[in-house]
Amino acid sequence: MTVKHVTSRDNPLLVRLRKLAGDPGGYRKAGEVWLEGDHLVSAFLHRGGRAPQAVITERGWENDRLRELANQADAVAIVPEALMAGLGTLESPVPLGFVVPWAGAGAPRPSEPTVVLDRLQDAGNVGAVLRSASAFGFTQVVAIKGTAALWSPKVLRAGMGAHFALHLVEAADPSVLDGLRVPLVATSSHAAQALHEVRLPWPCAWVMGHEGQGVSADLMARCALALRIPQPGGEESLNVAAAAAVCLYESARQRA
Amino acid sequence: MTVKHVTSRDNPLLVRLRKLAGDPGGYRKAGEVWLEGDHLVSAFLHRGGRAPQAVITERGWENDRLRELANQADAVAIVPEALMAGLGTLESPVPLGFVVPWAGAGAPRPSEPTVVLDRLQDAGNVGAVLRSASAFGFTQVVAIKGTAALWSPKVLRAGMGAHFALHLVEAADPSVLDGLRVPLVATSSHAAQALHEVRLPWPCAWVMGHEGQGVSADLMARCALALRIPQPGGEESLNVAAAAAVCLYESARQRA
Repeated sequence: MTVKHVTSRDNPLLVRLRKLAGDPGGYRKAGEVWLEGDHLVSAFLHRGGRAPQAVITERGWENDRLRELANQADAVAIVPEALMAGLGTLESPVPLGFVVPWAGAGAPRPSEPTVVLDRLQDAGNVGAVLRSASAFGFTQVVAIKGTAALWSPKVLRAGMGAHFALHLVEAADPSVLDGLRVPLVATSSHAAQALHEVRLPWPCAWVMGHEGQGVSADLMARCALALRIPQPGGEESLNVAAAAAVCLYESARQRA
Repeated sequence: MTVKHVTSRDNPLLVRLRKLAGDPGGYRKAGEVWLEGDHLVSAFLHRGGRAPQAVITERGWENDRLRELANQADAVAIVPEALMAGLGTLESPVPLGFVVPWAGAGAPRPSEPTVVLDRLQDAGNVGAVLRSASAFGFTQVVAIKGTAALWSPKVLRAGMGAHFALHLVEAADPSVLDGLRVPLVATSSHAAQALHEVRLPWPCAWVMGHEGQGVSADLMARCALALRIPQPGGEESLNVAAAAAVCLYESARQRA
């Protein structure tokens, strides 16, 4: 393990990281992901992740717990607070981050309980769905192209570590869904049956659609089942991450 | 109904609205709320709301549907696109907005199915919970002081019109909950029973806690029931709006 003090903003590592932090989809070109904050770093290590590079502030390096986290990377760069602030997408800069390799866009595994994201736009929604997927026993998320970049700083933050518990596929063409051996299920406000009225298949792939447009006709046609979320208030207007939580919970409840 | 062309940024109405748009809690002092966009305006009118003032862009005024919406206010101000942009909190400015009176912080009604927000910070979460409350047949939301301002532009946008379907109370002291005649229910990862394993009381008041800290000890002590959300994935880490959706759905499912 090497420890290095970095004090120049022109240091090549910091230049690379500023670029990554400033561009939500930049990791795809760079081949590496910036994990901002000790919560994400802990979750990454907890799942057995190995990091080539930690970046920690001078003050963070004086904190036993944070130094111990940083020391689990192959190399540590200690930077002044002001330089760390330039890498942050948060209002209050974090004391610690990891640079880790990006595993690539990936390919779906055919038989896993899956959540399909059909062009979800909002990073907070995407992160929240990843947390729900992980909590309710789904092991794979397939993001169709047009969905917010899964490893962007905002989705990572909203995901709170769920990324590391899931097999993630992104920028996927809808045709890859043909390779799934689990039935696709979607929600539709026009469906005759409510989701608690049917025996849900397990494993399955829940399809969650674009915030404004819902699930595309192309994807809807691939679904084995379309179900209504019962809404006695009659609003027919759940936030997509809320709708996802309900569907994934109902799958978990029926299995219990 | 009066229609007026406004072309100066110093027009007193526009000065007032810029102030409102720029300050999330500003409506409390101003006594009026800025509803940004035709979706919110339509939802407001659909629930029988009456607006003293519409603001519409010159281009919006040429659109039949938007002009008809604007004409339902007591007065209409037609403004150049550039001036409307200054009132917006969105990247792409909206063609239409309403200024409506703020009804005040309000007081809880004792016997309604209720959602209590205990210092929720994120505007997107608060708006999503309002949508779920309305969809699942809850009619009242009580926001404890420290919660994001319910009528701020961001919460209004995330609420997608749910505000107008609910009795909203905000900046509430926890002691007002003593006046509720419905049992308070919270989630807790330590609870022995899962929420689908018990007969949930109806009506009830679901208590949703701060994103980082959860429900305060003070509020937890007032709860008649604490229940676990079953999470076979073992993450114990749902986004609060996702957790709310699950709880409110489970109440609705059990009633159905």
